[in-house]
Amino acid sequence: MATVTVWNEYLHEREDDAVAEVYPDGIHATIATALSERGHDTQTATLEEPEHGLTEAVLDDTDVLLWWGHAAHDAVADGVVERVVERVHDGMGLLVLHSAHASKPFKRLLGTPCDLTWREADERERLWVVDPGHQITDGLGDAIVIEESETYGEPFGVPEPDRLVFTSWFEGGEVFRSGCCYRRGRGKLFYFRPGHETYPIYHRDDVKQVLDNAVRWATPTPGADANGGNRNVDPRE
Amino acid sequence: MATVTVWNEYLHEREDDAVAEVYPDGIHATIATALSERGHDTQTATLEEPEHGLTEAVLDDTDVLLWWGHAAHDAVADGVVERVVERVHDGMGLLVLHSAHASKPFKRLLGTPCDLTWREADERERLWVVDPGHQITDGLGDAIVIEESETYGEPFGVPEPDRLVFTSWFEGGEVFRSGCCYRRGRGKLFYFRPGHETYPIYHRDDVKQVLDNAVRWATPTPGADANGGNRNVDPRE
Amino acid sequence: MATVTVWNEYLHEREDDAVAEVYPDGIHATIATALSERGHDTQTATLEEPEHGLTEAVLDDTDVLLWWGHAAHDAVADGVVERVVERVHDGMGLLVLHSAHASKPFKRLLGTPCDLTWREADERERLWVVDPGHQITDGLGDAIVIEESETYGEPFGVPEPDRLVFTSWFEGGEVFRSGCCYRRGRGKLFYFRPGHETYPIYHRDDVKQVLDNAVRWATPTPGADANGGNRNVDPRE
Amino acid sequence: MATVTVWNEYLHEREDDAVAEVYPDGIHATIATALSERGHDTQTATLEEPEHGLTEAVLDDTDVLLWWGHAAHDAVADGVVERVVERVHDGMGLLVLHSAHASKPFKRLLGTPCDLTWREADERERLWVVDPGHQITDGLGDAIVIEESETYGEPFGVPEPDRLVFTSWFEGGEVFRSGCCYRRGRGKLFYFRPGHETYPIYHRDDVKQVLDNAVRWATPTPGADANGGNRNVDPRE
Repeated sequence: MATVTVWNEYLHEREDDAVAEVYPDGIHATIATALSERGHDTQTATLEEPEHGLTEAVLDDTDVLLWWGHAAHDAVADGVVERVVERVHDGMGLLVLHSAHASKPFKRLLGTPCDLTWREADERERLWVVDPGHQITDGLGDAIVIEESETYGEPFGVPEPDRLVFTSWFEGGEVFRSGCCYRRGRGKLFYFRPGHETYPIYHRDDVKQVLDNAVRWATPTPGADANGGNRNVDPRE
Repeated sequence: MATVTVWNEYLHEREDDAVAEVYPDGIHATIATALSERGHDTQTATLEEPEHGLTEAVLDDTDVLLWWGHAAHDAVADGVVERVVERVHDGMGLLVLHSAHASKPFKRLLGTPCDLTWREADERERLWVVDPGHQITDGLGDAIVIEESETYGEPFGVPEPDRLVFTSWFEGGEVFRSGCCYRRGRGKLFYFRPGHETYPIYHRDDVKQVLDNAVRWATPTPGADANGGNRNVDPRE
Repeated sequence: MATVTVWNEYLHEREDDAVAEVYPDGIHATIATALSERGHDTQTATLEEPEHGLTEAVLDDTDVLLWWGHAAHDAVADGVVERVVERVHDGMGLLVLHSAHASKPFKRLLGTPCDLTWREADERERLWVVDPGHQITDGLGDAIVIEESETYGEPFGVPEPDRLVFTSWFEGGEVFRSGCCYRRGRGKLFYFRPGHETYPIYHRDDVKQVLDNAVRWATPTPGADANGGNRNVDPRE
Repeated sequence: MATVTVWNEYLHEREDDAVAEVYPDGIHATIATALSERGHDTQTATLEEPEHGLTEAVLDDTDVLLWWGHAAHDAVADGVVERVVERVHDGMGLLVLHSAHASKPFKRLLGTPCDLTWREADERERLWVVDPGHQITDGLGDAIVIEESETYGEPFGVPEPDRLVFTSWFEGGEVFRSGCCYRRGRGKLFYFRPGHETYPIYHRDDVKQVLDNAVRWATPTPGADANGGNRNVDPRE
C-alpha cells in the first residue's frame, strides 16, 4: 500500500553476538520483511551508508519512514535530521520505535527532551489498548503481553499526545504511554515503545500488525493546496 | 466506499417555495446523489418517517450518518437520539451539517450547549483551510468562497476540537470555526458549517468534495476487541 | 480560597458497618474537613436532602463541586443533573471522584459511556505522575502508593483528556488513566480515580493535597463577557 | 505577582523614525512599564546586550519571558536559544509576540515552521474571543478591535493548539489563530498575534490586559518532584 523506508542505526547487531542471534540481518531487515509481506513496498537505510541512506532521492520515494536508534543518536548528521523533519512537515509519516524516543528527529519535531526512566530487568510488559477504536489497534485484543521486555517509566517528557493508543504495565511497578500519536505540519508521527534489541519483539505477529496498522495510518493523503508567504486576497472575490 | 445514510428534517423544502426551488427533492436527496456519484452506497431518512427513518436495521447498515436539521430539533425522539449516540460510540461516523449544531445528537455527544451567534445577511463567506494536511481537505485550494451565506459567529459553545480544519471569514466582520473534528468512543464526528436551506451550497462541487472527504475520514476501521465490565487479569500470563 | 460544595450519595456509610468505620460521618464530611483545613469555605450536600442538597441557592454559592456516587446514580433527578451541567458550562469547577465516573453529570458532560473494567482484590495501586508540571501535582513526588485499592482497568470510555495527569499501575496487571482534565464551556472538570468506600483513602495527606490542588485549579476566573444569539456587527467599527 | 523579563530585538525603534515615534524607548520598555503598573516585577533584555541579556542569572530570576523579534531572528545565538528552551521545559512561561512566530525559541519548542501569510495594508483587525472562559480573556468583551493592523493569514504552520483563545478577522478577507496556548515540559507558552512595530498596539489598555492575564496564566506552579533516568521501583513498596 505505502512506500516505506526502515531506518536502523545497525550497530548492536554487528557488535554484540546476543543481538545478532535475535536479528542476524539487523532490526531493519526484520521489520522491512514484515511490512513487505503485508503488501508495502519497502526499502532500508542505515547509519553508515552515505547520508545515512536518507538521500533526497530515497525520501522522495518514501511515504512512511520508520526509525530505530539507540547507541549513536549523536552520530546522525544535523543536515539529514533537518531533511527528515522537513519531509514530515510536508506529509511524510514517521514511526519512532523504542529507544528512538531520544533520536534527533523525534526531539526536533516534538520540541521537548523526550526523556524517561528505564531499567533492564527482563520484566513482563502488558500493553493495554486504551483507544480501541483507533486504526492502529485494528485486529488486536485487549492487550499485547510481552514476556520479557526492557522497562520504561513515566514521566515521559513529551507534549500531550494528540491521541494515546497504548499504555504499558510492567511487572516491576511502572506504567508508560507506549503508543502516542502526533501531527507536525502535514505529517503524522507515531511513537511505539516495544522493541529493545535483545528481545525478539519485532518477530511477533501482534507487533508486526501494529507496525502495519501504523504505516497505513501515517500514509499521507493529498490535502489542500495551501500557499504561504506574502499574499493579497480580494475580499470581493 | 462507505455505506451512508443522509438524514434530513425535510420541513423547509415542503413548506417554503423559495427553499423548494433550491432543493426540490430535499437537501437529503441532493447530498445523497452527490455521495452516490462519488462511489458511496447511500440511503436517506427523514423526520416524519417512522422512527425518523433511523431504525436499528437502517443503522446496522450505516457506516456514516449525515444530519441536517433546523426547525424541529425538539421533535426528534429521545430514544432515536440515544440510538444514534450509541452507534457513534460503537464506531459509526457522524457528519453534522450547518444548523444541526443545535441538534440533539450533537449536543448529547459533545456535552455542551453548542450555541453561537448568527445573522441572515447574504454575506460573502470565505472558508479558509487551516489544516491543509487533513484528509478532509483533499483536493481543495486555500479557501472555499461562497458568495452568499448565512453568517455564524463565535463563541461557538463546543469543546476544543481535536482538530480544527476550516475557519470562516464573513464579510460583515465575523469568524467561525467551520470545520471541527471530534472522537466519541470509536466514532468520528465532523461538524461542517455551510449549508443554509435558502442557498444552493450543497450543489457546489467543492462542498460535495468536502462531504465526500469527510465520509471517507469518518468511516470506521475495525479497531481492537476490547471488553469492559468485571475482569480478572493474571499478571503472570 | 474557593467556595466548595462536597456532594456525596451517602448510602454505603449508613448501610454498611465496615464503611461506617472508615467514614463515620460520611465521605463528604472527611473531604469537606480536609478542604476546610486547607483554607476553603466548604459545605456538603447529599442525595436524600431535598433537591439532593443542590438548590439554585447552594450552587450560586459554589465555585467548585465535588461529586462522589456509586450505588444510586439513577436516583439523581435529571433536573438536578441539568442544573449542575449548566453551572459547569457557566464556569463552576467539577471534581468527579472514583465511582462517580458513572454518575449522570459526568456522562452528560463528556458525551460518552465512561465505562471501565474493575475488580475488588485489595491490590496495591501506584498512581504515577505523568504531568509533573501540572498544578494538580503541586507538592507531590513521583507517585502516590496506595497499599490496598479497588482495581480499575482500561479501556476507560471517555474522550481523550485535555491533559492526563496521573496513570495508575495495579499489582494485578492493570493500568488506568486516573487523573483526567477536561473543559466544558467555561468550567473545568477533573476526574480522580482513588477513593473506594471501603478504604481510608480520603484520610491520606497526599490524596487531600491532590483534592486541594484540584480545587484551586478548577476555581473559575472571570473570563470574557461574550454574548450569543442573533447579532449584528458593523465591520467598520 | 510574577517576575517578568521582556526581551526585544530593539532594532526597528533605533533605525526607523516612524517606529521610534510610536515606541521611543523600545517595545520592551512599553510592555515592561505596563506589566510593572499591573503589579509584576519586570526587567528587560535586548539583542545587542551580552548573551542578548539572557544570562543564566537573568533567567534564574524570570517566571515569564516575553519575546518580540522580527528582523534579526537569525542573529540570536543558538546557545541562548537552547538556554531559553531548557528553562521553558523546566517551567518558565513564554509569551511569543507577533512576528516572533518566526523566532528560534518558538520554532524550536513547537517543532514546526510556524510560517503564515502576511500583508501590510493598514486593515482593520477584529480579535474575537473564541474561549471566553479562559483566564487570558479575563475582563475582555466579545472582541478587541484594532483600527489598523498588519494582516496575517492561515494556514499558520503550528501544531494544533492545546487551546485556541483568539481568532482574528481582517477587513481584507483573512482569518488567523491569534491566541494559541501550548505546554512544553513544565512550561506554558502563549502566542499572541497583534503588535507590529509601526502601530501603537502595545499602548492599548485591552492589549495590556491580555499580556497581564497571560503572564498570570503562564506563571509556573511548583508541580511534582519527578525524577528521570535509570530507576528501580520495588513493586511491593
